[in-house]
Amino acid sequence: MIIKITGAKKSDTKDILLLINELADYEHLNPPDPDARKRLIKDAFGKKPLYYLLLAKTDGKTIGYAIYFYTYSSFLAKRTLYLEDIYISSEFRKLGTGKLLFDELVKIARKKSCGRMEWCVLNWNSNAIRFYDKLGAKALKEWIYYRLSLRKREDS
Amino acid sequence: MIIKITGAKKSDTKDILLLINELADYEHLNPPDPDARKRLIKDAFGKKPLYYLLLAKTDGKTIGYAIYFYTYSSFLAKRTLYLEDIYISSEFRKLGTGKLLFDELVKIARKKSCGRMEWCVLNWNSNAIRFYDKLGAKALKEWIYYRLSLRKREDS
Repeated sequence: MIIKITGAKKSDTKDILLLINELADYEHLNPPDPDARKRLIKDAFGKKPLYYLLLAKTDGKTIGYAIYFYTYSSFLAKRTLYLEDIYISSEFRKLGTGKLLFDELVKIARKKSCGRMEWCVLNWNSNAIRFYDKLGAKALKEWIYYRLSLRKREDS
Repeated sequence: MIIKITGAKKSDTKDILLLINELADYEHLNPPDPDARKRLIKDAFGKKPLYYLLLAKTDGKTIGYAIYFYTYSSFLAKRTLYLEDIYISSEFRKLGTGKLLFDELVKIARKKSCGRMEWCVLNWNSNAIRFYDKLGAKALKEWIYYRLSLRKREDS
Protein backbone atom coordinates (compact mmCIF):
# COMPACT_ATOMS: atom_id res chain seq x y z
CA MET A 1 0.00 0.00 0.00
CA ILE A 2 1.56 3.27 -1.14
CA ILE A 3 0.58 6.34 0.88
CA LYS A 4 1.17 9.75 -0.67
CA ILE A 5 1.23 13.07 1.21
CA THR A 6 0.04 16.04 -0.81
CA GLY A 7 -1.27 19.61 -0.41
CA ALA A 8 -5.08 19.78 -0.65
CA LYS A 9 -6.94 21.15 -3.68
CA LYS A 10 -10.46 22.50 -3.84
CA SER A 11 -11.51 19.27 -5.58
CA ASP A 12 -10.68 17.42 -2.33
CA THR A 13 -13.45 19.31 -0.49
CA LYS A 14 -15.87 16.40 -0.12
CA ASP A 15 -13.19 14.04 1.26
CA ILE A 16 -11.91 16.69 3.68
CA LEU A 17 -15.35 17.42 5.14
CA LEU A 18 -16.01 13.70 5.66
CA LEU A 19 -12.76 13.31 7.61
CA ILE A 20 -13.38 16.50 9.64
CA ASN A 21 -16.70 15.00 10.73
CA GLU A 22 -14.94 11.76 11.70
CA LEU A 23 -12.44 13.68 13.84
CA ALA A 24 -15.22 15.65 15.60
CA ASP A 25 -16.88 12.34 16.43
CA TYR A 26 -13.59 10.87 17.75
CA GLU A 27 -12.98 13.95 19.95
CA HIS A 28 -16.58 13.89 21.25
CA LEU A 29 -17.28 17.30 19.66
CA ASN A 30 -20.13 18.45 17.44
CA PRO A 31 -19.32 18.32 13.71
CA PRO A 32 -19.27 21.68 11.83
CA ASP A 33 -22.73 22.96 10.81
CA PRO A 34 -23.44 23.86 7.14
CA ASP A 35 -22.24 27.48 7.56
CA ALA A 36 -19.02 26.35 9.24
CA ARG A 37 -18.43 23.81 6.45
CA LYS A 38 -18.70 26.60 3.88
CA ARG A 39 -16.29 28.80 5.85
CA LEU A 40 -13.80 25.93 6.22
CA ILE A 41 -13.58 25.56 2.44
CA LYS A 42 -13.48 29.31 1.74
CA ASP A 43 -10.81 29.86 4.40
CA ALA A 44 -8.57 27.09 2.99
CA PHE A 45 -8.89 27.85 -0.72
CA GLY A 46 -9.54 31.61 -0.84
CA LYS A 47 -7.05 34.23 -2.07
CA LYS A 48 -5.52 34.60 1.38
CA PRO A 49 -5.75 31.16 3.02
CA LEU A 50 -6.30 31.29 6.78
CA TYR A 51 -4.92 27.76 7.17
CA TYR A 52 -3.30 24.99 5.14
CA LEU A 53 -4.26 21.38 4.54
CA LEU A 54 -2.07 18.35 3.91
CA LEU A 55 -3.75 15.12 2.81
CA ALA A 56 -2.69 11.47 2.98
CA LYS A 57 -4.00 9.44 0.06
CA THR A 58 -3.81 5.83 -1.01
CA ASP A 59 -5.29 4.44 -4.24
CA GLY A 60 -7.00 7.80 -4.81
CA LYS A 61 -8.76 7.59 -1.43
CA THR A 62 -8.13 10.32 1.17
CA ILE A 63 -7.35 8.56 4.46
CA GLY A 64 -6.02 11.39 6.64
CA TYR A 65 -5.29 15.09 6.90
CA ALA A 66 -3.39 17.74 8.81
CA ILE A 67 -4.59 21.33 9.30
CA TYR A 68 -1.80 23.78 10.07
CA PHE A 69 -0.88 27.47 10.02
CA TYR A 70 1.94 29.72 11.14
CA THR A 71 2.15 31.41 14.51
CA TYR A 72 5.10 33.41 15.85
CA SER A 73 7.51 32.98 18.73
CA SER A 74 8.55 36.37 20.10
CA PHE A 75 11.17 34.52 22.17
CA LEU A 76 12.91 33.03 19.09
CA ALA A 77 11.80 35.82 16.71
CA LYS A 78 10.83 33.07 14.28
CA ARG A 79 7.67 31.59 12.89
CA THR A 80 6.23 28.42 14.44
CA LEU A 81 4.33 25.83 12.44
CA TYR A 82 1.21 25.18 14.51
CA LEU A 83 -0.58 21.88 13.91
CA GLU A 84 -4.28 22.44 14.57
CA ASP A 85 -5.52 18.94 13.68
CA ILE A 86 -4.04 15.66 12.52
CA TYR A 87 -6.37 12.79 11.80
CA ILE A 88 -6.15 9.35 10.19
CA SER A 89 -9.36 7.51 9.34
CA SER A 90 -9.82 4.65 11.85
CA GLU A 91 -9.60 1.79 9.33
CA PHE A 92 -6.25 3.09 8.05
CA ARG A 93 -4.36 3.39 11.35
CA LYS A 94 -1.10 1.59 12.22
CA LEU A 95 0.25 2.07 8.68
CA GLY A 96 2.61 4.92 9.53
CA THR A 97 0.41 7.59 7.92
CA GLY A 98 0.62 9.89 10.94
CA LYS A 99 4.41 9.73 10.80
CA LEU A 100 4.39 10.50 7.05
CA LEU A 101 2.17 13.56 7.62
CA PHE A 102 4.32 14.67 10.54
CA ASP A 103 7.59 14.27 8.61
CA GLU A 104 6.17 16.37 5.78
CA LEU A 105 5.09 19.08 8.27
CA VAL A 106 8.61 19.17 9.73
CA LYS A 107 10.00 19.54 6.19
CA ILE A 108 7.60 22.43 5.46
CA ALA A 109 8.42 24.08 8.80
CA ARG A 110 12.17 23.94 8.13
CA LYS A 111 11.67 25.30 4.60
CA LYS A 112 9.73 28.24 6.11
CA SER A 113 12.54 28.86 8.66
CA CYS A 114 10.32 28.00 11.62
CA GLY A 115 12.06 27.54 14.95
CA ARG A 116 9.43 25.19 16.33
CA MET A 117 6.38 23.09 15.69
CA GLU A 118 3.59 23.20 18.27
CA TRP A 119 0.20 21.58 18.85
CA CYS A 120 -2.22 20.58 21.60
CA VAL A 121 -3.43 17.13 22.54
CA LEU A 122 -6.36 16.04 24.72
CA ASN A 123 -5.00 14.53 27.93
CA TRP A 124 -7.00 11.28 27.51
CA ASN A 125 -5.59 10.61 24.02
CA SER A 126 -2.80 8.28 25.11
CA ASN A 127 -2.17 6.91 21.58
CA ALA A 128 -1.43 10.41 20.31
CA ILE A 129 0.66 11.25 23.39
CA ARG A 130 2.82 8.14 22.87
CA PHE A 131 3.26 9.10 19.21
CA TYR A 132 4.36 12.67 20.11
CA ASP A 133 6.70 11.51 22.86
CA LYS A 134 8.39 9.10 20.42
CA LEU A 135 8.95 11.99 17.99
CA GLY A 136 11.00 13.78 20.64
CA ALA A 137 8.39 16.48 21.27
CA LYS A 138 8.00 17.92 24.77
CA ALA A 139 4.87 18.58 26.81
CA LEU A 140 4.96 22.17 28.13
CA LYS A 141 3.51 21.38 31.52
CA GLU A 142 4.34 24.76 33.09
CA TRP A 143 2.04 26.61 30.68
CA ILE A 144 -1.74 26.88 31.09
CA TYR A 145 -3.77 27.43 27.93
CA TYR A 146 -6.50 30.09 28.29
CA ARG A 147 -9.48 30.86 26.08
CA LEU A 148 -12.01 33.69 25.96
CA SER A 149 -15.08 32.92 23.90
CA LEU A 150 -16.28 35.86 21.78
CA ARG A 151 -19.55 34.25 20.81
CA LYS A 152 -22.81 34.88 22.58
CA ARG A 153 -23.26 31.23 23.52
CA GLU A 154 -20.32 29.67 25.38
CA ASP A 155 -18.34 27.17 23.25
CA SER A 156 -16.12 24.38 24.45
CA MET B 1 -2.65 59.94 34.11
CA ILE B 2 -4.08 59.27 30.65
CA ILE B 3 -3.12 55.95 29.08
CA LYS B 4 -3.54 55.56 25.34
CA ILE B 5 -3.62 52.28 23.43
CA THR B 6 -2.27 52.46 19.90
CA GLY B 7 -0.89 50.27 17.10
CA ALA B 8 2.94 50.31 16.99
CA LYS B 9 4.94 52.16 14.32
CA LYS B 10 8.50 51.53 13.24
CA SER B 11 9.54 54.65 15.19
CA ASP B 12 8.54 52.82 18.40
CA THR B 13 11.27 50.21 17.82
CA LYS B 14 13.59 51.29 20.61
CA ASP B 15 10.81 51.39 23.23
CA ILE B 16 9.50 47.98 22.13
CA LEU B 17 12.89 46.27 22.39
CA LEU B 18 13.43 47.70 25.88
CA LEU B 19 10.10 46.30 27.08
CA ILE B 20 10.71 42.93 25.40
CA ASN B 21 13.95 42.67 27.38
CA GLU B 22 12.07 43.52 30.58
CA LEU B 23 9.54 40.75 29.91
CA ALA B 24 12.29 38.17 29.23
CA ASP B 25 13.82 39.12 32.56
CA TYR B 26 10.45 38.80 34.35
CA GLU B 27 9.83 35.34 32.81
CA HIS B 28 13.38 34.19 33.66
CA LEU B 29 14.23 33.79 29.96
CA ASN B 30 17.18 35.06 27.94
CA PRO B 31 16.53 38.35 26.13
CA PRO B 32 16.64 38.26 22.29
CA ASP B 33 20.15 38.41 20.80
CA PRO B 34 21.04 41.09 18.19
CA ASP B 35 19.91 38.91 15.24
CA ALA B 36 16.60 38.11 16.95
CA ARG B 37 16.08 41.83 17.68
CA LYS B 38 16.51 42.60 13.98
CA ARG B 39 14.07 39.85 12.99
CA LEU B 40 11.50 41.05 15.55
CA ILE B 41 11.43 44.49 13.93
CA LYS B 42 11.46 43.19 10.34
CA ASP B 43 8.67 40.68 11.13
CA ALA B 44 6.45 43.36 12.70
CA PHE B 45 6.95 46.15 10.18
CA GLY B 46 7.68 44.31 6.90
CA LYS B 47 5.30 44.11 3.93
CA LYS B 48 3.63 40.99 5.31
CA PRO B 49 3.73 41.32 9.10
CA LEU B 50 4.12 38.01 10.92
CA TYR B 51 2.65 39.50 14.09
CA TYR B 52 1.03 42.70 15.38
CA LEU B 53 1.92 45.04 18.22
CA LEU B 54 -0.32 47.18 20.41
CA LEU B 55 1.33 49.73 22.69
CA ALA B 56 0.19 51.46 25.87
CA LYS B 57 1.56 54.99 26.20
CA THR B 58 1.33 57.74 28.75
CA ASP B 59 2.90 61.17 28.37
CA GLY B 60 4.72 59.93 25.25
CA LYS B 61 6.33 57.09 27.23
CA THR B 62 5.66 53.47 26.18
CA ILE B 63 4.71 51.56 29.32
CA GLY B 64 3.37 48.27 27.95
CA TYR B 65 2.71 46.18 24.87
CA ALA B 66 0.80 43.25 23.48
CA ILE B 67 2.06 40.96 20.69
CA TYR B 68 -0.70 39.10 18.85
CA PHE B 69 -1.53 37.31 15.62
CA TYR B 70 -4.35 35.25 14.12
CA THR B 71 -4.66 31.50 14.38
CA TYR B 72 -7.61 29.41 13.20
CA SER B 73 -10.14 27.21 14.94
CA SER B 74 -11.16 24.32 12.67
CA PHE B 75 -13.89 23.55 15.22
CA LEU B 76 -15.54 27.00 14.85
CA ALA B 77 -14.28 27.60 11.30
CA LYS B 78 -13.27 31.08 12.47
CA ARG B 79 -10.09 32.95 13.18
CA THR B 80 -8.79 33.18 16.75
CA LEU B 81 -6.86 36.18 18.04
CA TYR B 82 -3.85 34.66 19.79
CA LEU B 83 -2.13 36.80 22.38
CA GLU B 84 1.56 35.85 22.41
CA ASP B 85 2.75 38.38 25.02
CA ILE B 86 1.24 41.07 27.18
CA TYR B 87 3.52 43.11 29.38
CA ILE B 88 3.29 46.24 31.51
CA SER B 89 6.47 47.85 32.81
CA SER B 90 6.77 47.12 36.54
CA GLU B 91 6.59 50.76 37.71
CA PHE B 92 3.32 51.27 35.80
CA ARG B 93 1.30 48.33 37.14
CA LYS B 94 -2.04 48.55 38.99
CA LEU B 95 -3.20 51.41 36.73
CA GLY B 96 -5.53 49.28 34.62
CA THR B 97 -3.20 49.26 31.59
CA GLY B 98 -3.49 45.49 31.14
CA LYS B 99 -7.27 45.78 31.06
CA LEU B 100 -7.08 48.61 28.49
CA LEU B 101 -4.80 46.52 26.24
CA PHE B 102 -7.05 43.50 26.68
CA ASP B 103 -10.24 45.43 25.89
CA GLU B 104 -8.65 46.77 22.70
CA LEU B 105 -7.62 43.22 21.69
CA VAL B 106 -11.20 42.00 22.21
CA LYS B 107 -12.42 44.89 20.03
CA ILE B 108 -9.92 43.99 17.27
CA ALA B 109 -10.84 40.29 17.52
CA ARG B 110 -14.55 41.04 17.15
CA LYS B 111 -13.87 43.35 14.20
CA LYS B 112 -11.94 40.53 12.50
CA SER B 113 -14.83 38.08 13.14
CA CYS B 114 -12.76 35.93 15.49
CA GLY B 115 -14.68 33.33 17.50
CA ARG B 116 -12.15 33.28 20.34
CA MET B 117 -9.13 34.84 21.96
CA GLU B 118 -6.45 32.47 23.29
CA TRP B 119 -3.14 32.72 25.11
CA CYS B 120 -0.86 30.81 27.48
CA VAL B 121 0.22 31.73 30.98
CA LEU B 122 3.02 30.33 33.15
CA ASN B 123 1.51 28.36 36.04
CA TRP B 124 3.44 30.35 38.68
CA ASN B 125 2.18 33.72 37.43
CA SER B 126 -0.72 34.02 39.88
CA ASN B 127 -1.24 37.78 39.23
CA ALA B 128 -1.83 37.11 35.55
CA ILE B 129 -4.04 34.08 36.29
CA ARG B 130 -6.25 36.16 38.62
CA PHE B 131 -6.50 38.84 35.91
CA TYR B 132 -7.55 36.29 33.24
CA ASP B 133 -10.05 34.55 35.52
CA LYS B 134 -11.69 37.92 36.31
CA LEU B 135 -12.06 38.55 32.55
CA GLY B 136 -14.20 35.42 32.28
CA ALA B 137 -11.54 33.44 30.37
CA LYS B 138 -11.27 29.69 30.92
CA ALA B 139 -8.22 27.52 31.54
CA LEU B 140 -8.27 24.55 29.11
CA LYS B 141 -7.00 22.00 31.58
CA GLU B 142 -7.81 18.95 29.43
CA TRP B 143 -5.35 20.04 26.71
CA ILE B 144 -1.59 19.45 26.85
CA TYR B 145 0.60 21.84 24.86
CA TYR B 146 3.37 20.11 22.88
CA ARG B 147 6.45 21.55 21.22
CA LEU B 148 9.06 20.17 18.84
CA SER B 149 12.20 22.24 18.57
CA LEU B 150 13.56 22.53 15.02
CA ARG B 151 16.82 24.12 16.08
CA LYS B 152 20.01 22.18 16.61
CA ARG B 153 20.31 23.24 20.24
CA GLU B 154 17.24 22.54 22.37
CA ASP B 155 15.32 25.68 23.37
CA SER B 156 12.98 26.13 26.28
